[in-house]
Amino acid sequence: MKAIVLLIQCADQKGLLAGITGFFAERGYNILHCQQYTDTEHGRYFMRLKVEDEAQLPHEILHQQFNLLAQTMKLTWSVHFTDVPYRVALLVTRASHCPYDLLLRELEGELKCEIPVIIGNHPELENMARQFNKPFYHLPITKETKQQQEAQIRSLLSEYQIDLVVMARYMQILSEQFVKEFTGKVINIHHGFLPAFQGAKPYHQAYERGVKLIGATAHYATAELDEGPIIEQDVERVRHDNSPADLVMIGKDIERLVLARAVKAHIEHRIIVSGRRTIVFAEGA
Amino acid sequence: MKAIVLLIQCADQKGLLAGITGFFAERGYNILHCQQYTDTEHGRYFMRLKVEDEAQLPHEILHQQFNLLAQTMKLTWSVHFTDVPYRVALLVTRASHCPYDLLLRELEGELKCEIPVIIGNHPELENMARQFNKPFYHLPITKETKQQQEAQIRSLLSEYQIDLVVMARYMQILSEQFVKEFTGKVINIHHGFLPAFQGAKPYHQAYERGVKLIGATAHYATAELDEGPIIEQDVERVRHDNSPADLVMIGKDIERLVLARAVKAHIEHRIIVSGRRTIVFAEGA
Amino acid sequence: MKAIVLLIQCADQKGLLAGITGFFAERGYNILHCQQYTDTEHGRYFMRLKVEDEAQLPHEILHQQFNLLAQTMKLTWSVHFTDVPYRVALLVTRASHCPYDLLLRELEGELKCEIPVIIGNHPELENMARQFNKPFYHLPITKETKQQQEAQIRSLLSEYQIDLVVMARYMQILSEQFVKEFTGKVINIHHGFLPAFQGAKPYHQAYERGVKLIGATAHYATAELDEGPIIEQDVERVRHDNSPADLVMIGKDIERLVLARAVKAHIEHRIIVSGRRTIVFAEGA
Amino acid sequence: MKAIVLLIQCADQKGLLAGITGFFAERGYNILHCQQYTDTEHGRYFMRLKVEDEAQLPHEILHQQFNLLAQTMKLTWSVHFTDVPYRVALLVTRASHCPYDLLLRELEGELKCEIPVIIGNHPELENMARQFNKPFYHLPITKETKQQQEAQIRSLLSEYQIDLVVMARYMQILSEQFVKEFTGKVINIHHGFLPAFQGAKPYHQAYERGVKLIGATAHYATAELDEGPIIEQDVERVRHDNSPADLVMIGKDIERLVLARAVKAHIEHRIIVSGRRTIVFAEGA
Repeated sequence: MKAIVLLIQCADQKGLLAGITGFFAERGYNILHCQQYTDTEHGRYFMRLKVEDEAQLPHEILHQQFNLLAQTMKLTWSVHFTDVPYRVALLVTRASHCPYDLLLRELEGELKCEIPVIIGNHPELENMARQFNKPFYHLPITKETKQQQEAQIRSLLSEYQIDLVVMARYMQILSEQFVKEFTGKVINIHHGFLPAFQGAKPYHQAYERGVKLIGATAHYATAELDEGPIIEQDVERVRHDNSPADLVMIGKDIERLVLARAVKAHIEHRIIVSGRRTIVFAEGA
Repeated sequence: MKAIVLLIQCADQKGLLAGITGFFAERGYNILHCQQYTDTEHGRYFMRLKVEDEAQLPHEILHQQFNLLAQTMKLTWSVHFTDVPYRVALLVTRASHCPYDLLLRELEGELKCEIPVIIGNHPELENMARQFNKPFYHLPITKETKQQQEAQIRSLLSEYQIDLVVMARYMQILSEQFVKEFTGKVINIHHGFLPAFQGAKPYHQAYERGVKLIGATAHYATAELDEGPIIEQDVERVRHDNSPADLVMIGKDIERLVLARAVKAHIEHRIIVSGRRTIVFAEGA
Repeated sequence: MKAIVLLIQCADQKGLLAGITGFFAERGYNILHCQQYTDTEHGRYFMRLKVEDEAQLPHEILHQQFNLLAQTMKLTWSVHFTDVPYRVALLVTRASHCPYDLLLRELEGELKCEIPVIIGNHPELENMARQFNKPFYHLPITKETKQQQEAQIRSLLSEYQIDLVVMARYMQILSEQFVKEFTGKVINIHHGFLPAFQGAKPYHQAYERGVKLIGATAHYATAELDEGPIIEQDVERVRHDNSPADLVMIGKDIERLVLARAVKAHIEHRIIVSGRRTIVFAEGA
Repeated sequence: MKAIVLLIQCADQKGLLAGITGFFAERGYNILHCQQYTDTEHGRYFMRLKVEDEAQLPHEILHQQFNLLAQTMKLTWSVHFTDVPYRVALLVTRASHCPYDLLLRELEGELKCEIPVIIGNHPELENMARQFNKPFYHLPITKETKQQQEAQIRSLLSEYQIDLVVMARYMQILSEQFVKEFTGKVINIHHGFLPAFQGAKPYHQAYERGVKLIGATAHYATAELDEGPIIEQDVERVRHDNSPADLVMIGKDIERLVLARAVKAHIEHRIIVSGRRTIVFAEGA
């Protein structure tokens, strides 16, 4: 079944729900699902609306007509057509657990997207790409070539018509310019602990600090490192007798699950970003 | 702020959302929150609608008018006014962890309800009732007096104008007649394990079976024991070196949390029962 | 570092710890780790002892000498040498999530074992085997050929010198004879819910019952289906708006994690079976 | 059954286990439980040993004799007798959820300790103390009286022969001098999030940041605020539609569980502090 998903946000006001759903009802669209959220702290309203696409109207006409309503109600909105699968590029380095996990989920149909290209700043994962018959580009990076390497990435993203970039443990900081250009289109994963640890070897730091939980956070990349809007988080309990190597291994399982859930929410058009927060509507709709 | 909550279910059909929200928009009601769910397996539609109650219409007029719409759309529905707090009776036996937990949450304002009466088939918890200045009725039960004791309970529920009965580890089976009379108004808690254990001393059975998780389930009481619609469940990880006594203790913490969450969902009018399933809408709305 | 692991169980008695550790101290073995557990319910004692193997004694001499002590103290015991990696065979059908997960963990060094052979009763996963350069045997099964097919499996297990058989969603019932022959050497994974569901399409049953948690259980295969000693379990929270297909997907993630943890515990010699219980000593040692 | 618990730490060395357990075996003590842990990162060895106390030796003689062994092996150690229950003082302010939880667990026998006194810097919880027949001291605090108020606390701790001070959401910073004097004898609880938030209204900050998990950490108080050795942590999943008030409520449940587990571990003599880490041996022993 073809469907149209609208992601809408605006100042809270009377008549939003009746007005927006009325718009589609009048035009003969069947509303499959409508999820809302009102942030009463800031007086903001958020809606995810999914309607059946039986070609009641050509897409551009629908776009024009809805835009008139949106201007009246001062809606910020985006529209997505579920019969056009997201195209996702993986940025990788040497660590294989996250990219393998995403490739398997594509293969098994858990992630309704296409992964047409993998880009690594190290050559180690070329074999993984070959296992799944994916083109792999090895774009090494040094201080001197960073800008040039990013230009190559940008060129590949364009060539492969990429909608979403997933930093699958890429471990490189993208330039401010790059991140701005792809605002809300780059997902990153990083370890997360209570308390937070900065710097190298975080799992060793966690061991030294004797933490009882380790975790991971998936977020949209922003210019400030690891400060982008959080999409998903999870933790696992650890004990004093878990070695730093154990923590790394446990951390890998959390990282891949958390990243996979974040990518899934994004490609199913379930996320609206509002300032530093994300509204992540429930799956299954 | 006063609010009106409607819980609605019906066969899925076009125009439900626009129709129902339009009804309230036309009458000047501000829609505070609208949660929906479509069970596509069975073609059923569920809605929880919360509107601001500024006395736009007297309650009985609103009731009449909405009833006309409900008949047209074949809605099953109930209405709740948030300025009338639920009145909750506790049925207890000797175990104090669940009733204490509920009394504390009432005291601390976590549960927006009133607990005007506690009924025990054993006298042990009279002191607990006294700590919280609650009337306590000791209604012992034997095979011979079971029917008579239930009549006394029924009479107290009526006297104290009770809306919800919580079996806070009551450990007695209510009669089929009683349960039918109070369908959807009696919440029970029982231990739950993977795999399930029947009979006495379930935590000992769990120990003997070497389970790695123990849990609890809160559900509406029905004539078939422990088979009512599930409201909430949770588990905790256990290890081989947890003794049966440890399991009991861990189980108590799960039981009280699970029961408290179930009661909270009920008194906030967030639950719709559909066959053997419950739709439990998210809190915070 | 080479190490020797002993798994010991016996009736609880005075002097066990001092006696056993004394045996190794006297012979110049450095005790790397000693984990114990006393089942006070049944008066049973369990120990996992790990000592450094610096060739103080030839293995067979050590075996003989320890056997004398074991006879005196009436110990049931087994010995394992960590420089000999387990050889693990995968039995598969069409579902790829569990076998992929195990193959990746072998590749990434998370599972210190070798997977030299994959056997499927359907041909679908041959490509997966090829991706990882593993021999794949397609042994179809019908009512008539069941016995013969098991003979072929047995022959392959022998040919590849297999220590552990993992039913990675194999979905076939092994014969009583087979299971007895490989007691404690066959690990199975199955879905597990609160409450338990028998029969086909368990995730659909779970949906119809409105459960709030779904889970999985890894256990040793025994003649009674799904009744073997539990090694590991886990659950994930689900909601009313998760479709049966969502439940299947969430279930897959739990299944592969639970199975991986169970296999890891087994190949690290951390499990002792006692009746229907398993003692699973903590990892990191 | 009376028992003696020893908590031991030292540099890792050969013969520790055989030596220490041999000491008790020679003197006719039955070893009930022996838990060990070797921190291979730092070459440190930790042991918790529990032996049956059948008055084989007077306690002071045992102490002297073991001290000789301890000097030879350079052990740091402490000894505890399980028939002498810990005496625990509660420091409170206005928040009742943590102190109520601890009082209930004492009452129900989950915490094998005595809580003979409650000290508050605000008068609000006097009624709670009265419910449980506990003396309550209202010691208000201002900038000017801080030193004097701590002297009063110290005097009460001495008068009531307190072994452990629990800051049950006390919200005041104890002086460096006080904390040093009671090193390892003051347990504090604080909220903990991913990422960490400093300053006032942490749950509001967490809301603004859109975190998906909130948590709590129990730790020993040290001069550096919230930097003491972590004893226990836990988290709960939250969603975008949980209001700041919801987060506070969810946080309270985590705080009380985490604090209760930490206190339980301490009074059961299961914790050894090593630098900024804690070794928390498993319960059930």
